[in-house]
Amino acid sequence: MAQTNLPLDADRLWADVMALAEITDPQRPYTRRSFTALFLEGRASLAEKFAEAGLVTRIDAAGNLIGRLEGTNPALGVIAIGSHSDTVPSGGRFDGIAGVATGLEIVRAFRDSGIRTEHTIEIIDFLAEEPSEYGLSCVGSRGMTGLLDARMLSLTGPGDETLRDALGRVGGDPDRLDLARRDDIKAFLELHIEQGIVLESRSLDVGIVTSIVGIRRIEIIFQGEADHAGTTPLGLRHDALVAAAATVSSVRRLAEGLAGEGPDYFVATVGILTTEPSASNIVPGRARLIVDARTTDPALTRRFVEALGRESLEHAAAARVQRASFETLSDGAPAACDPELRSALRAGARDLGLGETDLPSGAGHDAAFMSRICPSAMVFVPCRAGKSHAPEEWASREAIAAGAAVIFQAVRALDRSIARVKARPAG
Amino acid sequence: MAQTNLPLDADRLWADVMALAEITDPQRPYTRRSFTALFLEGRASLAEKFAEAGLVTRIDAAGNLIGRLEGTNPALGVIAIGSHSDTVPSGGRFDGIAGVATGLEIVRAFRDSGIRTEHTIEIIDFLAEEPSEYGLSCVGSRGMTGLLDARMLSLTGPGDETLRDALGRVGGDPDRLDLARRDDIKAFLELHIEQGIVLESRSLDVGIVTSIVGIRRIEIIFQGEADHAGTTPLGLRHDALVAAAATVSSVRRLAEGLAGEGPDYFVATVGILTTEPSASNIVPGRARLIVDARTTDPALTRRFVEALGRESLEHAAAARVQRASFETLSDGAPAACDPELRSALRAGARDLGLGETDLPSGAGHDAAFMSRICPSAMVFVPCRAGKSHAPEEWASREAIAAGAAVIFQAVRALDRSIARVKARPAG
Repeated sequence: MAQTNLPLDADRLWADVMALAEITDPQRPYTRRSFTALFLEGRASLAEKFAEAGLVTRIDAAGNLIGRLEGTNPALGVIAIGSHSDTVPSGGRFDGIAGVATGLEIVRAFRDSGIRTEHTIEIIDFLAEEPSEYGLSCVGSRGMTGLLDARMLSLTGPGDETLRDALGRVGGDPDRLDLARRDDIKAFLELHIEQGIVLESRSLDVGIVTSIVGIRRIEIIFQGEADHAGTTPLGLRHDALVAAAATVSSVRRLAEGLAGEGPDYFVATVGILTTEPSASNIVPGRARLIVDARTTDPALTRRFVEALGRESLEHAAAARVQRASFETLSDGAPAACDPELRSALRAGARDLGLGETDLPSGAGHDAAFMSRICPSAMVFVPCRAGKSHAPEEWASREAIAAGAAVIFQAVRALDRSIARVKARPAG
Repeated sequence: MAQTNLPLDADRLWADVMALAEITDPQRPYTRRSFTALFLEGRASLAEKFAEAGLVTRIDAAGNLIGRLEGTNPALGVIAIGSHSDTVPSGGRFDGIAGVATGLEIVRAFRDSGIRTEHTIEIIDFLAEEPSEYGLSCVGSRGMTGLLDARMLSLTGPGDETLRDALGRVGGDPDRLDLARRDDIKAFLELHIEQGIVLESRSLDVGIVTSIVGIRRIEIIFQGEADHAGTTPLGLRHDALVAAAATVSSVRRLAEGLAGEGPDYFVATVGILTTEPSASNIVPGRARLIVDARTTDPALTRRFVEALGRESLEHAAAARVQRASFETLSDGAPAACDPELRSALRAGARDLGLGETDLPSGAGHDAAFMSRICPSAMVFVPCRAGKSHAPEEWASREAIAAGAAVIFQAVRALDRSIARVKARPAG
């Protein structure tokens, strides 16, 4: 990476990321699950730093933590920078928080160097980007873009709490989600670790994201009967796990077929499979699995779901159980990143002498939802061996600083040019 | 069922069973897991009733709760009656406790009717007959028969507590298990619900058990890598659940083949399958499953384990994961019930005008371990639709009383004849 003389303080940015990593379930670092006490502790720490940087801080109706630095010409609207501060269970130190800390450091850099932007700058910590205990991801960015509906709010999590109640508990206002919808954001920029191996393998500094996969999540429940594993002959069983296991095999086989067609991207995963009552001497009476399918071409997902629906019914019949549920929990369309913003990011990287490339994102991000209401784009920074969602997730101080510098440059350029960038209508 | 004029009080026996059922996790009746506070609460209630019935009560080194009524000729040894008071998660009200309550009611009946037996009578509530959180079943009867070894004691459960520590915590003495070994028991009798549909379908009152299946439990662990479910192409994954799911399918297919050979009994079940980290957007990095295989012919289990070992390795290779463990957690041989005791039980049933039949037990029982050190036999009573290990488990007041009456008759007969029954050597 080339040396830069930008006013960004790489050490200060790094220290913010490391400080938040300390706020974790000590039994399984790095875990700061949305809606938990630890998550709220992390947010309180962020809000304090937002305030120290001179930002006016609030929680919007969708539960997003927002820090705002008023511009010299507020009528121009907002340039937003953000990501999320929640983690998966046993996740990493960078996924999400690197993007929030980047926004914070950019604001500090503007203040330290006496730069006043015409646009108002907002730093957004979106609520619950990772799949939450309520079965839904991107809760905050869905809310900000008008896509958090009543069915989603009625999902339940630990202690049978509804997402509606959980949202209220963390400072949101589920009855006034209309207040969270925005039409004043003119550009949204998100820095994130790549979570893949393209940048590392090509020794590049930053990736300019072309599009973000659409993600469909499906819950399948098989209902059988919890019989004694010793006295119930095989032919009389209603074993829910037998059907679920065959369905896991179907998911893998179907996904391999679709991915092999190329050139579009397709992956599918069963990351959660639970059984009840879960005792070694009881035939499983119930099994639940969550299928996660991702693609840059929605037609592939449609074919996948149709085939999986058929095969899972066959597996249920063979195991003499009911397929009690085959429900789409969420279905996000692929999102293209905005060409004007991508150009600004690319120009920033080139000005700084950084190696960059275009690449798609196999992971979902808040930027995918934000692209529904405003021009949005992302910068990826390399992470070691592509590892993410795991404690060994690692991105270097220099890699994060380089990505942040690219966004800093783009924000400065967009602040001057953006009045001529045509914003998309909200909704 | 014929009317009897035995001194057994069917209502009192029933009340004991129902009273213990009240001691349950209220969130998921009927749950009284071994080693938990609820389990100890149940035992305290039993110990109080033992004492009220005039029994001298103690916990032996293997954690068994024992009530003792001294005979008029203690040199003749002990006739023991018992079962267990722990349950599976979301189990029933009868499995286990019906046998303990039967012993208690028989002692009361002797006292109420002024009968003094020559033999000492002991009522035994065996510790942890159901598979415990430490991965082992029949902890107490293994201990009483010298089969609880150091490896088993080092198994760990919740909070990484060892079984050794848990045993000490509930009143046992893991360092002096030799004290729990017995050579003075001349007969062991256990009443249990059938957990099958033979008796109900044939409108019979009691089953005289011929033999108890041997149970082998195997833990299989697949270790892969917890990668991001969006950014990791299928061909680069190390998905532990894919291997585990294929193994579940193998277990079912192999078991069906062996059961179909006849005439011996064979069933195999995967009742527990867990994955880590268990998030919808993370490729499962680790999967653990417990296989439970049961047979009246150990050769079938040997063939099953050999084939499963081979196939699970193939599934691991196909999914690019390690089969980190393929370990036998426990391996009990089939146990034949004692012919002399079976004759005494059959005679008792016929004297009472009850319908009886011989039948094998597909479920494991403490009697299988006790048969290693003394003549042992079992009486099954019918339960509705064969349901067990589930809240709807049900046996009628009359069914339990009939089974208890058969054991009462047999104990009276054995007390007179047993000096001539040759006891097996201990060990």
